Parts: sequence; C-alpha cells; structure tokens
Amino acid sequence: MANEGSYVALGLKVWKAQIERADKLFGSLSSEEILREVAPGGNRLLYLWGHLTAMHDAMLPLLGLRERLYPEFDVAFVSNPDKSRAGIPAHEQVRQAWNAVNGELSKGLEKMSWSDWLQRHSAVSAEDFVKDASRNRFAILLSRTNHLSYHLGQAVLGLK
Amino acid sequence: MANEGSYVALGLKVWKAQIERADKLFGSLSSEEILREVAPGGNRLLYLWGHLTAMHDAMLPLLGLRERLYPEFDVAFVSNPDKSRAGIPAHEQVRQAWNAVNGELSKGLEKMSWSDWLQRHSAVSAEDFVKDASRNRFAILLSRTNHLSYHLGQAVLGLK
Repeated sequence: MANEGSYVALGLKVWKAQIERADKLFGSLSSEEILREVAPGGNRLLYLWGHLTAMHDAMLPLLGLRERLYPEFDVAFVSNPDKSRAGIPAHEQVRQAWNAVNGELSKGLEKMSWSDWLQRHSAVSAEDFVKDASRNRFAILLSRTNHLSYHLGQAVLGLK
Repeated sequence: MANEGSYVALGLKVWKAQIERADKLFGSLSSEEILREVAPGGNRLLYLWGHLTAMHDAMLPLLGLRERLYPEFDVAFVSNPDKSRAGIPAHEQVRQAWNAVNGELSKGLEKMSWSDWLQRHSAVSAEDFVKDASRNRFAILLSRTNHLSYHLGQAVLGLK
C-alpha cells in the first residue's frame, strides 16, 4: 500500500511541475504576446493554451471527478485547427477557464486514493477494461502530463 | 505486488510510446532535413536528436544499469548550445548512438523489478534519499519521458 502510494505521488509530482511551468509561461503573457505563433504560420499561443485547457477539462469526467466545465472549448481548440474559425474564446476567457479547470482537477486529484488510479477511466467500457486493464486513470495522468510537456516545448519557441 | 507492477508497466508503456515516436520522426530524416532548425535561428534537429541521445545515455548509470556508452556526447549536445562548436558528431554517428543507447536502455528496463524502481537513483546520496524518497528511479523514468515529449513537440515544428 505504501509503495503504491509512492508511484501515484510521483505521477502527481511530475504533473504538478508541468502545470506550474504552464502557469508561469502562459499566465505572464500580454494580449499581444498571446497571439504569437509557435512557428511561422503555426498555432498561436492562445490556441495552445485553449487546447490544453480543453484537454484538461475533459480529464474531469475521464477520471470520474465531475462533468466538464467548458465543453464548448472543444469546437474552438480541439476539433478545429487554429485560425479556421472566426469566434474563439478570448485571452481573458481562456485564462479564467485554465485556472478554473486546473483548480478543479487539483482538488479532485488530491482526493483520489491509490486504488482509484487503477480503476478504468470513463471512456473505456467495463468489457474492454477486462481485456486491457492498462486503460486506467493513472494512464490518463501520465499521457496528459506528456501531452502538456509536448506543447510546452512548442510554446517556449513562440516566445523566442 | 500486482498493483505495483501495474504502475511500472504503465510508466514503461508511455516511455516506449514516446521512443517509438522519436524513432519514426528522427529516424526517417535525410541528411538535409536533419539540419533544419525547429524555429528560425533555433536548434537544429540533429542537435535535438544528439541531446536526447546524451540524456538517455546518462540514464544508464542513473538507473544503476551500466556505465555510459557515449559520455563525449555531453560536450556537443548538453553543456554547449547548438552551433557553438565546430565538430559535433555527424548524422550517422548520432543515429548509431541513439539506437545503441535506447537498445541498452530497453534491455535494462525490462530486467528491473518493481521494487528496483523505488530505489534511489545514482545521483542522490543515501543520506539525501532518506530525507526525500521521491528521488528514485521511477522519478527518472517519468521525468525523462516528459523531457522526450517536450523536444518531440519542438522537432515536429522543424519538419513543417
């Protein structure tokens, strides 16, 4: 039991470290800087921040914590590429949503016991989970942490 | 015990998935493509590949598996920025080193038991480990997986 808690604590520690990097990086940008592209012609930082917010929002139901806060972010930041739609949420809306979503997640993650983490996530059926028990909540945590790192690497380039 | 194995298996699964992405991305580049920059004036893909190789090579002693294969990569790809030195290892040398290092790592990781993962890594002293048991081998695996994701996000931009 003590050991199992150690693995979860490590997973959460790495998650939190990446969230803090993202807070610092995105949270300090001006309304001009947030519109910079990560590469010539590429995604704008605002799009990346909204994308991360939407993906983290979707973790709330995936981990069995609660319903989503901003399901409407998907159209703007997940299912369509940047600059393909006229009206996407503005800088301040994304900032507010990012803080709200990660605040909810942080509260929820703290409450999960180590045995919760090995339960299936909500996008896998009970039958499929019998066939592949690796589709659990800890897998979501690890893959979303890496997803965040991936886009942080890009965001840093937009600021140079 | 079964549960502890699950966490380790998940950590290894995410690690392997990122290694496969890197194999595909870097492994298929021509000798011209490997010299592209990830951003205007930024690191070249060759530098990123060498950097990842050096960091993974350093995991071998950190995880108690064996001595490093390419300690000389650090001068070229870790302690100095890209384009600051005349002679860095060439494309084919980096390819060979990447394959050798990740092959050795893969063999070593398979042999580790779940209890090995919670042992201290070799860069932390026994005294410091008593104070902070999170400085273990599983922490190295998670942080290096995120480090790889971070640079993969950048490498993708260099190919656009």
